[in-house]
Amino acid sequence: MLAMVDYTPVAMSGCQIYVDFAAPPEALEVLRGGTAGHQLIFPKKPAASVLARPEPDPQFATADIAFGQPDPRAIAESSRLKWIHVSSSGITRYDNPAFRALMADRKIFVTNSAMVYAEACAAHVLSFILAQGRNLPLALKTHVPTGTPSWRGLRDTSSTLRGDTLLILGYGAIGRRLAELLRPFALKVIAYRRKPRGDESVPVITADRLARVLGEADHVVNIMPDSAETRHFFDAARFAAGKAGAVFYNIGRGTTVNQDALLGALRSGRIRAAWLDVTDPEPLPENHPLRAEPNCFITPHVAGGHRGETTALVRHFLENLGRFVRGEPLLDRVM
Amino acid sequence: MLAMVDYTPVAMSGCQIYVDFAAPPEALEVLRGGTAGHQLIFPKKPAASVLARPEPDPQFATADIAFGQPDPRAIAESSRLKWIHVSSSGITRYDNPAFRALMADRKIFVTNSAMVYAEACAAHVLSFILAQGRNLPLALKTHVPTGTPSWRGLRDTSSTLRGDTLLILGYGAIGRRLAELLRPFALKVIAYRRKPRGDESVPVITADRLARVLGEADHVVNIMPDSAETRHFFDAARFAAGKAGAVFYNIGRGTTVNQDALLGALRSGRIRAAWLDVTDPEPLPENHPLRAEPNCFITPHVAGGHRGETTALVRHFLENLGRFVRGEPLLDRVM
Repeated sequence: MLAMVDYTPVAMSGCQIYVDFAAPPEALEVLRGGTAGHQLIFPKKPAASVLARPEPDPQFATADIAFGQPDPRAIAESSRLKWIHVSSSGITRYDNPAFRALMADRKIFVTNSAMVYAEACAAHVLSFILAQGRNLPLALKTHVPTGTPSWRGLRDTSSTLRGDTLLILGYGAIGRRLAELLRPFALKVIAYRRKPRGDESVPVITADRLARVLGEADHVVNIMPDSAETRHFFDAARFAAGKAGAVFYNIGRGTTVNQDALLGALRSGRIRAAWLDVTDPEPLPENHPLRAEPNCFITPHVAGGHRGETTALVRHFLENLGRFVRGEPLLDRVM
Repeated sequence: MLAMVDYTPVAMSGCQIYVDFAAPPEALEVLRGGTAGHQLIFPKKPAASVLARPEPDPQFATADIAFGQPDPRAIAESSRLKWIHVSSSGITRYDNPAFRALMADRKIFVTNSAMVYAEACAAHVLSFILAQGRNLPLALKTHVPTGTPSWRGLRDTSSTLRGDTLLILGYGAIGRRLAELLRPFALKVIAYRRKPRGDESVPVITADRLARVLGEADHVVNIMPDSAETRHFFDAARFAAGKAGAVFYNIGRGTTVNQDALLGALRSGRIRAAWLDVTDPEPLPENHPLRAEPNCFITPHVAGGHRGETTALVRHFLENLGRFVRGEPLLDRVM
């Protein structure tokens, strides 16, 4: 990974802003209201989702700023572009050495929307952790009298998390927020990060200690993005290195997991349960064996979702637009 | 409610301890190990659960201390008894003015096991709150591609809890712990308590302001015990006073809710969803209409359950036994 070039934005007004994400009317209204003095440009066909590939659009060449999921090829061809604000947390399509080098060379800022999704993603993974801890999937379908052996068994397999160890892999905005939400619980939180910054609020480990800590973690929370380095990061060897009976959670990207290895770990009981908001592909086919595993729980890539999400995305962009125009450092800068 | 008499226990050793709860071998071993110098007395038939009525047992008359769910009639007939340690949070069978007066008159201490269950109960209700907020019951069975209208709809009905108001009714050990667990969330927590003590960590209201605060609460968490005063506390009028679309949670006792009124509130949409760990009766019959409501989620009275629960109960009793013998104030004293 190349280091981020250290420079502050050049103040600009009267910008051409290319907007390619599907915004509902109320979010568009907020965007128009907050961009007076600038010019908004919309593609003929906006991208359906952060994972879809946009169609080529000649208007892109006139843009100073791109907000949404702009096409890396169009970015490479543009000579005007100064700043890209990605409307998601994930930046997979941009996260490669060549693109980073291009951005550094042309002094194009790249920011993402991590702050918008951090709260919802952290709450989502905590809902997984507690649903697993309290055995909710089983408890919600168990109708037994108090005092019976099956009632006792259900209580005995429920947990308070007290004394457990929880490992977070990928410690960005979501991981930090998750650690905050977990603070009142009497559990030990450890983060794995390729390059610790020293300002983390929990103990941080790097690759050299990962196998040992995996062997101690009752909960393994994967928030890693998709990249060449993270692809199939969780393979058979890593699951085998895990603590017997650990629970695996994934709200990062599906490609970071070798799903055959996960299936094997679930079937052998090495992994007690898996809670996945992301899979590869999405959605997972109906006949995929993970769907049939009784201890595999899947939500359809909704961890970041929340009421008012699109308006929040727009407000985050507008906050950064103000900073851009005033020549101040941008929030959620990733390149 | 009578005031608790203010006196400290009289130091005693060589006690006769009557134990009537079903303890597994490992918990019994901890109990035996911690009661050396005392005499344990076991009934011929231990009570099956906290809700079952024990059979009369002549041995009870010889006990100085009762640990479990002793029969109120046997307690009334005993002339030796000095202290009752109830092995549950709920003390319904003892919580009436006549029994309280008898305990005060005979200087019998009554303690419960609230501290043992507080952590699990608070985690359980938080698992309900987050499962509802993240729309887990629906999300776990929705298999849709990202970007589709139903995917967007699922995201838009998910929440971060940010800005919500949550009302806790019954602010004892569980309510306090729940408020602690909720502290990192950006929501407003208010407690309803008949008699505020002034040491609560959140704003407390009494009956005079209840209707108004019910009208503002997005989440209503009922932790009230069963008593003559709380029976059918949640009736049609209280549900009607609630905020439209509020979510109702009950981990107190099922009798505090008029279930017909709850059903009506769910069907009208006044209540968006109900999450119940307790019902009346338990378990709720298979053909009870609440079981058929799509937004009613029921666990079978397991909120307090956790691995090692019975051993934790025994350790809590032993901690109090040490205090009793040393003449120190008892934990979780309720009378």
